[in-house]
Amino acid sequence: MNNVIAVDIGGTHFRVGLFDEAGRRLLVSENATLPAGGREWVLEQVRDHCRRFAEKSDYPVKACGMSFGGLVDSQCQRVTSVHFAGWKDFALADWMWEMLGVPCRLENDANAGALGEYTYGAGRGLGSLFYVTLSAGIGGGWISEGKIIRGRDGLAGEIGHLPVSDTGVLCSCGARGCLETFCSGEAIARRGQEWAGRRSETRMIELSGGAIEDITAKAVIEAAAQGDMAAERILREAGRWLARALLMVIRLLNPDKIVLGGGVAQAGNLLLDPVNEAIGELKSPTIGFSTAIVLAELGTLSPLYGAAVLAREAAGTPV
Amino acid sequence: MNNVIAVDIGGTHFRVGLFDEAGRRLLVSENATLPAGGREWVLEQVRDHCRRFAEKSDYPVKACGMSFGGLVDSQCQRVTSVHFAGWKDFALADWMWEMLGVPCRLENDANAGALGEYTYGAGRGLGSLFYVTLSAGIGGGWISEGKIIRGRDGLAGEIGHLPVSDTGVLCSCGARGCLETFCSGEAIARRGQEWAGRRSETRMIELSGGAIEDITAKAVIEAAAQGDMAAERILREAGRWLARALLMVIRLLNPDKIVLGGGVAQAGNLLLDPVNEAIGELKSPTIGFSTAIVLAELGTLSPLYGAAVLAREAAGTPV
Repeated sequence: MNNVIAVDIGGTHFRVGLFDEAGRRLLVSENATLPAGGREWVLEQVRDHCRRFAEKSDYPVKACGMSFGGLVDSQCQRVTSVHFAGWKDFALADWMWEMLGVPCRLENDANAGALGEYTYGAGRGLGSLFYVTLSAGIGGGWISEGKIIRGRDGLAGEIGHLPVSDTGVLCSCGARGCLETFCSGEAIARRGQEWAGRRSETRMIELSGGAIEDITAKAVIEAAAQGDMAAERILREAGRWLARALLMVIRLLNPDKIVLGGGVAQAGNLLLDPVNEAIGELKSPTIGFSTAIVLAELGTLSPLYGAAVLAREAAGTPV
Repeated sequence: MNNVIAVDIGGTHFRVGLFDEAGRRLLVSENATLPAGGREWVLEQVRDHCRRFAEKSDYPVKACGMSFGGLVDSQCQRVTSVHFAGWKDFALADWMWEMLGVPCRLENDANAGALGEYTYGAGRGLGSLFYVTLSAGIGGGWISEGKIIRGRDGLAGEIGHLPVSDTGVLCSCGARGCLETFCSGEAIARRGQEWAGRRSETRMIELSGGAIEDITAKAVIEAAAQGDMAAERILREAGRWLARALLMVIRLLNPDKIVLGGGVAQAGNLLLDPVNEAIGELKSPTIGFSTAIVLAELGTLSPLYGAAVLAREAAGTPV
């Protein structure tokens, strides 16, 4: 028997898990990322958690898998993200390998999430799956016949930057009309703040301690769950934009399932219902399809489970 | 040595070819489809051409491959198209097998075109390719790691029905905003007719024998090639809509190459230049990609060459 360690470094949280060979989660930790801490602080935290889990493990830790919430060069196993200061060109897999003394494999969070859901979640037993990670930004991971499809430049599945409109705010990528500007966590938070700035009687403000500028996507989701109509409407609109992008995924990839994960997907049916409603309106009455749109079964842990799959690949254990 | 027969049945033309084992074209015929003839007329013509080619062949004809310009159920090897009267649920591959006495394989024209370009055209030596057939309608075929990707319902690659706008005329599929309504041959012909109806001084009318309602996409392309500014503008606008859809293909599939084929692609740089210009404007300044957009090397014969590849598969000859 052997165990593996899985790590998921995201923009707002980092998670570490200990898994057994069958993919069962034995231990897990989830902590908020200290924005001011930078790369060194995150690595220190990850090192501490990994070592503690390795010590607690009843069996030897044979390998490690990592998910990173930004661009990753999977060939070179390096972070290429320019969005998080200090991470660009960092050989994260090598660092981990050296630190733990076991082989390590790295993927971006969207591919890791797809792998997690495909192996242990909503995609079990399917041939193909498209996973959407709806968090601060939006990413997509796509698996066909059991393999991650990366594309020529490693950009396949980039649903966050699908052009869904001619208008809207400028995206962080520099283009206009990207899906990310309409239904990412940041976009939802911005809509919440805009609404609260115009009308003060909303639960979104109370849930954020009274400060409009502190309204997050999480507060919008909570307020909507409590029946706040403005928050519900913000999610409904986000869902309608998402539906437009998912219809493009269905037209071009026609996967067995589309799985919605990440923090924003924790809104559950408050997001999924408007998505399916809008798909029903936008779709062609004569081109039927059976691609189902579902919520991630592993919640926000899809990428961590995917990292466990990567660890088993790194260890040479068939998955 | 053995030869194979390839057949391509399209909306406006049908083509028959005799190929050798190395994929060399030995004989080819191209004829216009008689619209009033229906299925029986087309099958009779195809039968005559096939028998003549089989007689002329120096070596035995070992197998047959077919491309059909409409929906095909590749599992059952039947036509499922509802657009052409009389073809629905017709077991075309079986009919051919019986008629010629050799195994036959059938694909829709977009998949066949992709296979043709991948094996003998612009996609030689590549890992992945997205082929767009721009004819009366618009279809897409997609090959990854040498295999046609079909999707759950056989709808993968359906670029013609990508939603690229909220407005525009109703598509034949019943939805609004489909790419097909902006840059298919039918859409280009309609724009030509609309323009000519408003202003009579255009080459498009002369090239159509003076009758506005007879202006076809081919006449628009010819007029543009002769410097008619209205016709050029129609192609430029069509190219800009196409660019939007191709950017979606790049985001989600990121293939090695996108190959533009079919009758409308015979416009060459009159279409390709505006496509590349619009891609340059729409793309993100920070998300670089190296997917090239090129014209089909096999011209309007890409699906026929693909049918030859299918024939070799049917014969059990490795391609």
